[in-house]
Amino acid sequence: MTTTLDLTALFTETRARSESICLPLELEDYVVQPVDFVSPPKWHLGHTTWFFEEMLLKPYLPDYRVFDSQYGYVFNSYYESLGARVVRTDRGNLSRPSVNDVYRYRHHVDEAMLALMATDLPATAHELLEIGIHHEKQHQELLLTDIKFILGNNPLLPALDTDWKEDGKLVGSASWIRFRESVITIGHNGNSFGYDNEFPEHKQLVPSFQISSELVTNGEYLEFIQAGGYQDPQYWHAEGWDWVKTQNITAPLYWQNVDDTWKRYTLAGLEYLQPDDYVAHVSFYEAFAYAQWRGMRLPTEFEWEATQDQFDWGHRWEWTSSAYMPYPGYKKPKGAVGEYNGKFMVNQQVLRGSSIATPPAHARPTYRNFFHAPLRWQFTGIRLATDHNLTDDQE
Amino acid sequence: MTTTLDLTALFTETRARSESICLPLELEDYVVQPVDFVSPPKWHLGHTTWFFEEMLLKPYLPDYRVFDSQYGYVFNSYYESLGARVVRTDRGNLSRPSVNDVYRYRHHVDEAMLALMATDLPATAHELLEIGIHHEKQHQELLLTDIKFILGNNPLLPALDTDWKEDGKLVGSASWIRFRESVITIGHNGNSFGYDNEFPEHKQLVPSFQISSELVTNGEYLEFIQAGGYQDPQYWHAEGWDWVKTQNITAPLYWQNVDDTWKRYTLAGLEYLQPDDYVAHVSFYEAFAYAQWRGMRLPTEFEWEATQDQFDWGHRWEWTSSAYMPYPGYKKPKGAVGEYNGKFMVNQQVLRGSSIATPPAHARPTYRNFFHAPLRWQFTGIRLATDHNLTDDQE
Amino acid sequence: MTTTLDLTALFTETRARSESICLPLELEDYVVQPVDFVSPPKWHLGHTTWFFEEMLLKPYLPDYRVFDSQYGYVFNSYYESLGARVVRTDRGNLSRPSVNDVYRYRHHVDEAMLALMATDLPATAHELLEIGIHHEKQHQELLLTDIKFILGNNPLLPALDTDWKEDGKLVGSASWIRFRESVITIGHNGNSFGYDNEFPEHKQLVPSFQISSELVTNGEYLEFIQAGGYQDPQYWHAEGWDWVKTQNITAPLYWQNVDDTWKRYTLAGLEYLQPDDYVAHVSFYEAFAYAQWRGMRLPTEFEWEATQDQFDWGHRWEWTSSAYMPYPGYKKPKGAVGEYNGKFMVNQQVLRGSSIATPPAHARPTYRNFFHAPLRWQFTGIRLATDHNLTDDQE
Amino acid sequence: MTTTLDLTALFTETRARSESICLPLELEDYVVQPVDFVSPPKWHLGHTTWFFEEMLLKPYLPDYRVFDSQYGYVFNSYYESLGARVVRTDRGNLSRPSVNDVYRYRHHVDEAMLALMATDLPATAHELLEIGIHHEKQHQELLLTDIKFILGNNPLLPALDTDWKEDGKLVGSASWIRFRESVITIGHNGNSFGYDNEFPEHKQLVPSFQISSELVTNGEYLEFIQAGGYQDPQYWHAEGWDWVKTQNITAPLYWQNVDDTWKRYTLAGLEYLQPDDYVAHVSFYEAFAYAQWRGMRLPTEFEWEATQDQFDWGHRWEWTSSAYMPYPGYKKPKGAVGEYNGKFMVNQQVLRGSSIATPPAHARPTYRNFFHAPLRWQFTGIRLATDHNLTDDQE
Repeated sequence: MTTTLDLTALFTETRARSESICLPLELEDYVVQPVDFVSPPKWHLGHTTWFFEEMLLKPYLPDYRVFDSQYGYVFNSYYESLGARVVRTDRGNLSRPSVNDVYRYRHHVDEAMLALMATDLPATAHELLEIGIHHEKQHQELLLTDIKFILGNNPLLPALDTDWKEDGKLVGSASWIRFRESVITIGHNGNSFGYDNEFPEHKQLVPSFQISSELVTNGEYLEFIQAGGYQDPQYWHAEGWDWVKTQNITAPLYWQNVDDTWKRYTLAGLEYLQPDDYVAHVSFYEAFAYAQWRGMRLPTEFEWEATQDQFDWGHRWEWTSSAYMPYPGYKKPKGAVGEYNGKFMVNQQVLRGSSIATPPAHARPTYRNFFHAPLRWQFTGIRLATDHNLTDDQE
Repeated sequence: MTTTLDLTALFTETRARSESICLPLELEDYVVQPVDFVSPPKWHLGHTTWFFEEMLLKPYLPDYRVFDSQYGYVFNSYYESLGARVVRTDRGNLSRPSVNDVYRYRHHVDEAMLALMATDLPATAHELLEIGIHHEKQHQELLLTDIKFILGNNPLLPALDTDWKEDGKLVGSASWIRFRESVITIGHNGNSFGYDNEFPEHKQLVPSFQISSELVTNGEYLEFIQAGGYQDPQYWHAEGWDWVKTQNITAPLYWQNVDDTWKRYTLAGLEYLQPDDYVAHVSFYEAFAYAQWRGMRLPTEFEWEATQDQFDWGHRWEWTSSAYMPYPGYKKPKGAVGEYNGKFMVNQQVLRGSSIATPPAHARPTYRNFFHAPLRWQFTGIRLATDHNLTDDQE
Repeated sequence: MTTTLDLTALFTETRARSESICLPLELEDYVVQPVDFVSPPKWHLGHTTWFFEEMLLKPYLPDYRVFDSQYGYVFNSYYESLGARVVRTDRGNLSRPSVNDVYRYRHHVDEAMLALMATDLPATAHELLEIGIHHEKQHQELLLTDIKFILGNNPLLPALDTDWKEDGKLVGSASWIRFRESVITIGHNGNSFGYDNEFPEHKQLVPSFQISSELVTNGEYLEFIQAGGYQDPQYWHAEGWDWVKTQNITAPLYWQNVDDTWKRYTLAGLEYLQPDDYVAHVSFYEAFAYAQWRGMRLPTEFEWEATQDQFDWGHRWEWTSSAYMPYPGYKKPKGAVGEYNGKFMVNQQVLRGSSIATPPAHARPTYRNFFHAPLRWQFTGIRLATDHNLTDDQE
Repeated sequence: MTTTLDLTALFTETRARSESICLPLELEDYVVQPVDFVSPPKWHLGHTTWFFEEMLLKPYLPDYRVFDSQYGYVFNSYYESLGARVVRTDRGNLSRPSVNDVYRYRHHVDEAMLALMATDLPATAHELLEIGIHHEKQHQELLLTDIKFILGNNPLLPALDTDWKEDGKLVGSASWIRFRESVITIGHNGNSFGYDNEFPEHKQLVPSFQISSELVTNGEYLEFIQAGGYQDPQYWHAEGWDWVKTQNITAPLYWQNVDDTWKRYTLAGLEYLQPDDYVAHVSFYEAFAYAQWRGMRLPTEFEWEATQDQFDWGHRWEWTSSAYMPYPGYKKPKGAVGEYNGKFMVNQQVLRGSSIATPPAHARPTYRNFFHAPLRWQFTGIRLATDHNLTDDQE
C-alpha cells in the first residue's frame, strides 16, 4: 500500500501538473464552455480542489476554514449527496470566481492539505486522498481534451503549443495476434491503486479470436470515407445512422476538407492529415461502422485485457464492443465516493488503453474508461478484432 | 425444420389472431399514436402485411400485383435498404389508408401468400416466411401493449375488455435458487426457429449466485415507494435519476393514487391495486433502483438462462442487468433481414421471459427481448438476484 | 337586434352545416391532428357543442343533465376560467370519445338548446347564444382548412370532393384605387352582430395611398419564386428569413414541383397550378416579402376598410400590415367570453376579408381575423398597396 | 447638419466611453454569454468596431489594411448582406480573439478612422459615420444591461460598482395628464440625427385619454404580486400566461424573496427593495397584466409622444401598447444599413423614453426602441394610461 509520504509527493506533483497544463492558455480560454460535455478549464481547476476540501479537509482537518462557502455550489460536479450545484450546461456562463480566485483557492487548499498530510491519517482518509489524486489525474486528461475542443472549435483555430505532436503512428505493418479459448483472470488484483469499477478480480471465459497488433490509421479510415461509408446505412447502428444524418457527420472530429485536401486540427494548429498516424476522435458509432465495413468487429474489453501484453498500446483510448456494466460481485463504495462509477453503468461503452493526454503512470491494463457512443472529443481510436482465422496479409 | 405445410397453418392462424386482437376496438382506436414509441393499431396491421408483400410476394410470386405502390412508403418501419418511409412520429397523423383499406390490403396479401405457399418455396423464401410469421407475432405483443397505452392514457380510461385479467400473482412465498459457478451453454441450438440474436450457441462462465423463484409483487414495490425510493438518488443510475426528476416519476406506469388509494389501469379499466400481483410497467431504471434498495441486483441474462428451468416464468418480461450485445461469433444475416436485430445492439437492455401479451408458443428460454432503459409500456417486471448466500427467509 | 326566433333558425341551420361539412369524411379523418395548430374534426364538433352546454345550458336551463362530466376536460379550448383541459397538442391522441359519441353529444345538446330557446331568454343568454352561433361558424372555417391540412399532408393526397373548386381568379386586369388622406370611421356600428374586437367604432386618420383592385395571382407569385425571392434575404423580415431557412420554405403551402411542373393540392386533389387563380396559403412573411420585391407594401387594416367598397373581396383572407391590437376604447367583455379575443392581442397580424371557407353571411367589412405570421394553412392571399402615385399599368 | 468636425469629437468621445464602461470588469466578465439575447462585452467592443471598418474604412479609406480578415465572421451581428457570421448563441463560446486583441483591434480602427475623418468625406460616408456613432451608443446601453445580466445571474452576485445607484424614484405623488382628441405630428423632423424608423414625420389622430405623470413604483407593483397577480390568468395575454407558467415567473427580473424579505440585484450588488423606486425589469406581458389589474392600460406610442413634454421621463424605457410597425411612408435605406431597423418590424413592442443606461444625449422624444414581449433585461418600466376621466386621487 502507498504510504502517506508517497502520497504527499504524488499530491504535490499532481497539483503542480494541472497548473502547468494551463500555462499556455490565454486567460479567456479558462472560461468558455462551447458544448455541454466540455467544462471550462477553470472549472476543472476548482472542481478537483473542491474534492479535496469536501472529502478531506472538512471532515479531517480540525479548524479548517472553508475558502468560500459558495464554492461548493459552483464546483460540485454530480454528487447528489453533497448538495445543490450549478447545472452542467451553465459552467461556461460564470465569469466569477475569476481565474485568479480559483488559483488562490487552489493554494489555500494545497496548504491545508500539506498540513493534513503531515498528521496521522486514518485509513479512510488515506483512501480518499489516493482517490482524490487519481481523480485530479483524470481531470488532467479532460483538461487537455477540453482545451483542444475550445480552441479547435474557434473559427481562428489557434494553436495551444506549436511544438505539440499528436501521438501514435504506424511503423511497419500490422499483424494478427491469435487467442485460443480459455478462462482467464480479469480485473484488478488490488496490489496497487484501482477504481472500484476494476474490481473484483474474477474469471471470464474468452472465446478464440484474433486482434490486430496496430490501431487503424488515418489512411485506412480515409478509404472508408472514400468508399462512401458515411452514406451507407448498412454499416451503422440504427442510432448511429440517425446521428450521422441529423448531425451531418462526414469525417472524424477536427478533420476538414479544404480545397480537396484533408487537414486536421491538433493542439499545434491546423495540419495536413498524416496517413500513417492513428485515426483519432471517432465516436463508437464510427468505430463500429468502420469495423463492419472491413468485415471485422471491435474487441470486447475482455479480449483486449486478455491480449494487451502482446501489442503496443497507450496512444489512443480504444473503443471496445463492451457496454459498461459492473463486474460480477461489484460493490459500490460507501458514502459520496459511491457515486464515482456505479451510477454511470448504463448506456455507455468501455474504452481500454490510454492516450497522449493521460497523465504519466495513470494508465494500467485493467483501467476501464467509459463514454457515450456519440462522443468523440477524447483521443479515441480503433483496434480491429475478428472471429476469423486470418493470416497477417489478409486484413 | 418446419415444413411449408406447417408454416401455412401457422401463417393462417397468426394472421387471423392479429385481427382478432383488434376486434374489441372502436375504429378510432386504430388511428392514434399518443407517443412516438407507440404505433397506431392499423399501422401494425399494415406493416406486418407489407413485410410479406415486400420480402416474399414481390421477389417470389410471379405476376404478383402490388396492392398500392404507396403503401411501402407508409408501412416500412425502419428498413433503410427498402426505401423512404413515413417518419415514426408521423404514423398517427395519417387518417388514410383507412382501416377498411388496411383490412382489404391484408386480405389481398393473404390470398397471394396462400398461392405462394402452395408452390415449392426455395429455402431463402422458406426462411423469410418463417421470419415473417414470427415478426407478426412480435407485433401482436406490441398491438396489445400499444392498445393499452392508447386507452390507458385517454382521460376517459375506457376498458378494452372488462373480462381481461392481468396475469401473474404470487402464490405462497418466494425461495432462493442457488447456482454454483460453472461453464454453461447459452443461446439457441438451431433445432427450431430462433432469431439471429440468439445465435450462435456458445459457452459462458457463470459465477455463483442466487436468484428468486418469484417476481417482485405490487405490495413489495409499494414498500419501496413508501420508503421514499423515488426521492433518494442513491439507488438510481445518474440518468435514471434525471429521468425521475424531469418526468416527475413517482410510481409505475398506469398507477394512480386517488384519494390515498392506489389503483392501476388494466385492459379491464381502472382497478384497485392487488398487492400480490406481480408489479408491471416498470422501467429498467426503476427495476435497478428497487433492487439496489433491497441490497440486491438484477440477474444477468446468462444467469437467467442458466436457472430458468428452476422457476416459473412467462408472466412478465424480466429486466436483466445485461446490455444488448451480440453473442460471440454473431453473424448478421444478408439482405434486408440483416436490419432485424443487429443494428439495435447498443444502448438497450435485454429482457428475458415473456408476458401475458406474448402470443402462444412464441416464448422460449433463449429469446432475447430488448428495450431502452426508460421504456415501460411493455409488461415488464423484476426478478431479484444476489451474490450473497441467502436462506429463503432473508430477502 | 336579432330575435330569439331568428336565432333559433340560425342555430339549427348552423349546427346542421357543421355536420354537412363532415359528410364526405372517412371516420378516420375525424381523429388525427398532424400539427399543433390543426384540430381533429371531431374535436371541432365537440368543442362547439361544449360551448353551448357550458355557456347556456348549465347556467340557464333548469334540470339540464350534463351529457358526460368529463367532456369539459376534453373539449375546452383555452378558457382558463372554465377549468382544466387536454393540452392542445394532445387532441389528436384521443381515440375516445368516439365520433359516434360526439354526434350523440351534439344531438343531446341540440335538443336541450331547442328547449332553452323556446323559453324567454334573459339578455345575457341571448348574447351568448348569438356568440355561440358565430363561434361555431368560425369553427366551420377551421373545419375546412383543418380537413384540407389533414388530407393535403397525407402521402396519398386524397381528395375530399373531386368537384371542389378553389375560389378566386383574376378576370381582366388589376387597377389602382386611390385614396386621399382623410379621417374616416373604422369599426362596427353595433346595428348587427360583431365581435368585441370590432368595437368601438372610432375615427382614424388614413393617409393618401393606392390599393390594387385585385389579389395577387399564382402567376405573379411564381415570378417572385423564379426571380429567386426565397433565396434573397433583402425582402424578408429577419424572423421571416429564419423561417424560410430553418423550414426549407420554397413555395406556398400545398405547392409541389413535380418534374418541373407546378401543381397544388386542393380539396379536389392534386391539380396543375392555374396562373390566373389568386395565390393562396402564403404566410405573412411571404406576403410581406412578395410586396417588398414588387417595391410595394401590404395595406394597413384601416386602409383596407377605407376602400373595401371599391373592390371585390371575399375570395381570400388578406394579410394586412397591421398588428392585432385593441381599438381605442376597447372593452373586454365580462366573464368567460372575455377570453374570446382580447388575450390574443399580441404578436399576431390582422387579416381582412373572408375566404371560400367562410360560412355564408359570416363575412363583413369590419371583421378582424388574426393569425401568427408564419401560419398559412388558412386561405390567405395578398393585396398590394403603395404610397406612390401609380397609373394602372405601372404595377 | 452635423459637421465632420463635430462628428470627429463625438466619435472620439463615444469610442472612449465604451471602454470606460468596461473598466471595472474582470477580464473573465468580457467573455461569457449566459443567455442568447446577451452578448459578451468583448463582442460589443469588437462589433461596434467592425461596423466602422466594414462600412467606412473598407469602402472609403484607400490602402486601409484590414486588421484580421476573420474578424468579419466573428463580429458581424445580423447583416445578411455582409457575409457569414458566428451564430448568435455561439458568441460566448469564443475565447479568442482575446480581450487584448479586441482592444488592439479597436485602436487600429480608431487610428484609421481619424485619418479618414481628416479627409473630405462624401455625404454617404458622413451619414454612415453618424449612424456608426449612434450605433455604438446603442451598444453602450446593451453593454451595461448585458453586464448586469452576467453578474446578476452569477450565484456569487458580484457588484460592478458599489457606488452605482439605480435611477428613478417617486417624489411626491402621481397626477393624471389629460389629452383632448386631436391630430398631431408624430416622428422626427429631420433637423438632427434620427434613425430611419422615426421617419417620416406624419400626422396621427390621437383620441382623448389620460396618462400618469409618474412611472409605477416597486411598492405599487408589489401590491399586484401580493394580490395574486401572477396566479390569475384573467390579467394576462394568453402567451403571457404561458410564459408565466412555463418559466415559473413570480416577480420582476433580479428580484429575490429571501426569508420573506424582498431584495433586488443592482449593479451595486443585492439590496433591499425600495418601495418608492420605479419598478424595472418587467416584460411587456407583466406591464400589460399590471395595467389590466389596475383597470387601466398602457399608452400607445403616439399618446406617449403627444404628451411627453408634460411629464418627466428618462429613467426607464416605457413599454407602450404599440406593436413595432413602419410609419406611413416609411422608406428602408439602401445598402447594408437598410437592415438596421425595417427587418425587425414584426412581433415586437415599441418602448419609449430612455434609461439610466442610455448614453448622454442619445435620448429624444421620437426615439423608438423595440423588444420582444418576454424580454426584461433592459431597464423597462410601466406608465399607465386610461380612457376614463380620472381625478388625481383615483388611480
